[in-house]
Amino acid sequence: MPPIITLLSDFGYQDVYVGVLKGVILQINPQIRLVDLTHAIPPQDIGSGSFQLANACAYFPSGTVHLVIVDPGVGSQRRGIAMQTQRGFFVGPDNGLFSLVLDQDPPLAAVELTNPDYWRSSTPSATFHGRDIFAPVAAHLASGVSLEQLGESIPVTELVRLPHQSYQPILGGWQGHIQAIDGFGNLITNLPAELIVSQAWQLELGGRIVKGCQTYSQVERGGLVGLVGSHGWLEVAVNGGSAAQVLDLKVGDGVRLWL
Amino acid sequence: MPPIITLLSDFGYQDVYVGVLKGVILQINPQIRLVDLTHAIPPQDIGSGSFQLANACAYFPSGTVHLVIVDPGVGSQRRGIAMQTQRGFFVGPDNGLFSLVLDQDPPLAAVELTNPDYWRSSTPSATFHGRDIFAPVAAHLASGVSLEQLGESIPVTELVRLPHQSYQPILGGWQGHIQAIDGFGNLITNLPAELIVSQAWQLELGGRIVKGCQTYSQVERGGLVGLVGSHGWLEVAVNGGSAAQVLDLKVGDGVRLWL
Amino acid sequence: MPPIITLLSDFGYQDVYVGVLKGVILQINPQIRLVDLTHAIPPQDIGSGSFQLANACAYFPSGTVHLVIVDPGVGSQRRGIAMQTQRGFFVGPDNGLFSLVLDQDPPLAAVELTNPDYWRSSTPSATFHGRDIFAPVAAHLASGVSLEQLGESIPVTELVRLPHQSYQPILGGWQGHIQAIDGFGNLITNLPAELIVSQAWQLELGGRIVKGCQTYSQVERGGLVGLVGSHGWLEVAVNGGSAAQVLDLKVGDGVRLWL
Repeated sequence: MPPIITLLSDFGYQDVYVGVLKGVILQINPQIRLVDLTHAIPPQDIGSGSFQLANACAYFPSGTVHLVIVDPGVGSQRRGIAMQTQRGFFVGPDNGLFSLVLDQDPPLAAVELTNPDYWRSSTPSATFHGRDIFAPVAAHLASGVSLEQLGESIPVTELVRLPHQSYQPILGGWQGHIQAIDGFGNLITNLPAELIVSQAWQLELGGRIVKGCQTYSQVERGGLVGLVGSHGWLEVAVNGGSAAQVLDLKVGDGVRLWL
Repeated sequence: MPPIITLLSDFGYQDVYVGVLKGVILQINPQIRLVDLTHAIPPQDIGSGSFQLANACAYFPSGTVHLVIVDPGVGSQRRGIAMQTQRGFFVGPDNGLFSLVLDQDPPLAAVELTNPDYWRSSTPSATFHGRDIFAPVAAHLASGVSLEQLGESIPVTELVRLPHQSYQPILGGWQGHIQAIDGFGNLITNLPAELIVSQAWQLELGGRIVKGCQTYSQVERGGLVGLVGSHGWLEVAVNGGSAAQVLDLKVGDGVRLWL
Repeated sequence: MPPIITLLSDFGYQDVYVGVLKGVILQINPQIRLVDLTHAIPPQDIGSGSFQLANACAYFPSGTVHLVIVDPGVGSQRRGIAMQTQRGFFVGPDNGLFSLVLDQDPPLAAVELTNPDYWRSSTPSATFHGRDIFAPVAAHLASGVSLEQLGESIPVTELVRLPHQSYQPILGGWQGHIQAIDGFGNLITNLPAELIVSQAWQLELGGRIVKGCQTYSQVERGGLVGLVGSHGWLEVAVNGGSAAQVLDLKVGDGVRLWL
């Protein structure tokens, strides 16, 4: 099986920064398969990076290396890390980017990237650790180098997590919030599908009550619909339109689930 | 020869939905080569998907599998299909997305995707058949599974086509319309190049007469130019600019060809 | 080692033009690895294409073929070329797109693409040489065809270069300009890092003095910071923001380096 590296970043599609990462990887091992997750994470938005990564990484073959770079603290004291989970490997800055993965797929081991033998050079730039440290480390990991060779072991409990803003029980349901808005304008809550106990459920948000359904097409065109999203969270969509536009809501706004 | 799957969708580049499709495919067969056609089809715009697909698929090696997902009716009664043509295989919803391909490259056989053995699970989600049905089916097809194994045969004459808005003869020429506008702002008509009988031809649109030329540079910078587009349709461009902006026209607006 | 072709163009991500290039290449040799550098070069902006190409190509394995298409003069008298450097091969129009590569990695040989044996057909379209000439030539070059087979040799000194707008010494420093703005809004000057002689340096632009630092995080959030960019040029950034927005400057605006 050819080694696979996925790439997720806030580098955008305008510049060649992503191409540079790929060149660095292929210089180390031209057999590696490269798959983009997305590079349209809003600049320096670690929370969005953590959300998108967690939604994608579970679908890849075990052993896949996920190279993840949203790195506002590059050049500061934040650590660079690599970690191994049941499903695969993760490489990037230890700044909270792995928060949701740490919940879903607890790591077996983690190291701080302290061994310059696996960097592009022993004197990395201060502004592009993606090119100088993370991409080469990912390429070596995908080529058979072990986690232990990359640096010093760190306890997985010490890995940085974003402050956890959870959902809460309320009388007759649950209180949560919008954790993401996708490119279709679907409002994705942080309420997991498991909270639903029957087919009679409703979401309340932006002063509107939205009925829980099975498919977009259960409501008329332009109508609001509550759904179990494909990622396992409850979401609000508009059949043939954008719920974010119709409801004028944003990430962090409150949502109630009535059962 | 390694198997090839192309991907075309309205998923955009902001989210990881395309990455999820690729992970699902590589879990089934990590040898498959993946090539993006585009994921910037306007949300749920089946006509645009049909147009873009038809412009690209002919350039791939025979046997290529084209995975095509613009699926506003996901979870409703619309069928999921796979079909085989002279050139390759196509997988996606039977909602008109294959209209232009059906014209250009008539299918030899088609099946409804009724066999859950080739799905990701026998209980697919109601909102993401791309991940749960179409991507796994495409991966199995690219790996040697036959069309017949995927489900029940359906007559190719029963496949859904978009209402055909054709061009018409008029006195001294032809009446057609703008069928697409590309990223350069070129206005692509539905008038095929074969209608031209000499080098003296003109397009009339938006109250302007535009002369037929061979290259952009036959007119001064900023000038309007009629061309045989690379896809074989007549188009209107601006040398060094955007015809869509200069003429302020949109898809569906009328165009006349004067011979 | 599998052959690698990188692709850089102004085709954007909305249409299937890039997908068509890839299909044409894979029809010739399905083993070729394809890597996108960027396709978001502003339409017909040769200077931006030259800048982005020069920033990426050095990171790829030697022998890589770089297919580069920003081609406003397609169909006119401009030449199509292929050239070989120490690092790899380049294919595209001879319109200045290779200006910075010619400086950084002087070519060993160059040919005009006059041999139609390696084109898609001997009668290429007038509007899409990328599909009809450049992509097939790149595929053949990556598959072992020699430069000499592709056409007639041309002296490398005759290759087209963009007018060179260099930096100049001034009393106490250097006068340069902004040569590019990246997707983060970082202002990239044409002043190379080698001009700095000590850690005490400042950039003056837009009426502001910006201090030279090592990392973004040496200034407070929202503060302006001068840096040695990862590409080796001096740049101005905003910690956690966009310098292009804060300073309201554009490509070509003047910058002074005070030492």
